[in-house]
Amino acid sequence: MELYKKITEGIGPLYGQNMREASERLDKLAKPIGSLGKLEELAVRISGMTGRLFNSFDKKVIIIMAADNGVVEEGVSSCPPIVTTIQTINFLKGVTGVCVLSKHAGADIRVVDIGIGSDLEHPGLISRKIRKGTSNMAKGPAMSREEAYKAIETGMEMVSQLVGEGYGLFGTGEMGIGNTSTSSAVVMAFLGCNADAAVGKGAGLTEEGFRNKKDVISKAIMVNGPEPNDPIDVLSKVGGFDIAGMAGCFLGAAYHRVPIVIDGFISAAAALAAYRINPGVRDFMIASHCSEEPGYDLVIKELGLEPMLELGMRLGEGSGCPLAFNIIEAAEVIISEMATLEEAKIEDDFLIDIREK
Amino acid sequence: MELYKKITEGIGPLYGQNMREASERLDKLAKPIGSLGKLEELAVRISGMTGRLFNSFDKKVIIIMAADNGVVEEGVSSCPPIVTTIQTINFLKGVTGVCVLSKHAGADIRVVDIGIGSDLEHPGLISRKIRKGTSNMAKGPAMSREEAYKAIETGMEMVSQLVGEGYGLFGTGEMGIGNTSTSSAVVMAFLGCNADAAVGKGAGLTEEGFRNKKDVISKAIMVNGPEPNDPIDVLSKVGGFDIAGMAGCFLGAAYHRVPIVIDGFISAAAALAAYRINPGVRDFMIASHCSEEPGYDLVIKELGLEPMLELGMRLGEGSGCPLAFNIIEAAEVIISEMATLEEAKIEDDFLIDIREK
Repeated sequence: MELYKKITEGIGPLYGQNMREASERLDKLAKPIGSLGKLEELAVRISGMTGRLFNSFDKKVIIIMAADNGVVEEGVSSCPPIVTTIQTINFLKGVTGVCVLSKHAGADIRVVDIGIGSDLEHPGLISRKIRKGTSNMAKGPAMSREEAYKAIETGMEMVSQLVGEGYGLFGTGEMGIGNTSTSSAVVMAFLGCNADAAVGKGAGLTEEGFRNKKDVISKAIMVNGPEPNDPIDVLSKVGGFDIAGMAGCFLGAAYHRVPIVIDGFISAAAALAAYRINPGVRDFMIASHCSEEPGYDLVIKELGLEPMLELGMRLGEGSGCPLAFNIIEAAEVIISEMATLEEAKIEDDFLIDIREK
Repeated sequence: MELYKKITEGIGPLYGQNMREASERLDKLAKPIGSLGKLEELAVRISGMTGRLFNSFDKKVIIIMAADNGVVEEGVSSCPPIVTTIQTINFLKGVTGVCVLSKHAGADIRVVDIGIGSDLEHPGLISRKIRKGTSNMAKGPAMSREEAYKAIETGMEMVSQLVGEGYGLFGTGEMGIGNTSTSSAVVMAFLGCNADAAVGKGAGLTEEGFRNKKDVISKAIMVNGPEPNDPIDVLSKVGGFDIAGMAGCFLGAAYHRVPIVIDGFISAAAALAAYRINPGVRDFMIASHCSEEPGYDLVIKELGLEPMLELGMRLGEGSGCPLAFNIIEAAEVIISEMATLEEAKIEDDFLIDIREK
């Protein structure tokens, strides 16, 4: 609770003066004003985060929160829960989607066991298990308030530690069978929408499985009655350790004034929880791609953000983050390496020479 | 004409067998089927182009066609025509938007003088000038049919030469004051739409300038009466040397079976011209970002393509290509480096071990 209080109360606004300086620089570059659209907006906002005109991200990292969800016993997923464990091992072997994309982007990954259902030890795995999976939210709260705080603080600690190691650009990822269900429940609780608006087929359900998933999530909301104005109540009753941990990552990144990327639907649900804890966190978030899960659009609009990529992706894991990293770095290349109009001006003599020819 | 005939008649279909093999491989990877959306579609289509299951693009290049447009004397642009020359020099100095983004993406650029209005010599400039700018299309044809063929063949030759140098991934760029006007005219001629649908403010016109631009382009269509079923008629009457040259690049890339990226509106107009010359060229095109110019959407729908990036960009130069290159390479990383379900399966003993714990 002490760390939670320190971080959530320590998030400051973007630095206006640095943003103005970045805007002025961009307007002086050899291009029509504003013609690089979101690349320019990104460069300006990142200056507002870091307080620096030019930023480069030699050390980039995606934090993957892995946890199991008790609600899986209601048949909400097409995969058995053991897949959480199997895929976590595959992250550590570097062979999943987010791994190969991160390698391509020059980004590292950190895999955190924040609540995997099995005992798992591996030198590459960061063991911060709160419990072996949450309780079944269709029957009662997924976790206690204390566990929710602990999961959030785990995310905060991860970011603090990685900032200390020199990482300057963050992404959020997850692995947890059943976590599109918990994400939908979190979104429904915060936004007051129904299952038809916020529930998708996840990794791939039959029509019957899809109907069941919607029923189970609606039941979880009814049974628990999460209070939308109390984010800890929402996270503890219908969230997951992964979602709460990711929410902590967003809050931690904002506290440390480093940009952090939202991946897909689950990551967006966690971002929404962080935003309800402290709306200031939003300014440090960057949306990557538009997820195929139907609830994504609702969340990203609520956050006032716009995704940059339209790739029809619905893998999760953090797989959209390395693609966004490349665009964020492109934005920094624009502000720092393009010539200003002054520098790009051809010397008068040369110009006359050209004109006379 | 001989090269034009050889290339346009030599474009083959995608290789179905290679696409099936790529799809099968993607469906075997450790992820829900189809969950990487357009990344998977890209990998499949590229296998259909090259005939290889795995593709890597060590040598990537953006061809920039630079030319002036006679119609500028009608006041359709907010920039004086000398800016074509100035920016071409800046490309060679490596300081424009497309230059710094290409460097970031590990891509080379080639700058072709296909019709710049001034005499310009530089060791880095490829001099293939057809004429010092087109004639004013508001008063008559921009160029002769012979010149249109010559410009298209210039693009074809550039691609052939670069394929010979080992380049395997192509992008298209341009520099030419007035070329959003010629692009709008080309799109209006092919699609039969009016100026309100296809004309934008380009680099930044006043409302009055914008009205004038629409009037001038409409007049150019009326004066010349380009025949929509004769792409050479359209290109020669209301096109530009840059647009025709880029159309040649698209056709050349399809002939050589290498992927080629569409940048923004001008590039898309050239892609449409190439598509009307031989519809088969479309299968080798990859759309990068959704341009802010209003005509872009019309063209990309006509081509049956979808942009991957939503960045609100309207710079041109080819600046969307290096961003798309990164996504294309990500698609290749997915198909070639991700583990299959078979490879990702944890040994039975280990699994039992995990389950028993």
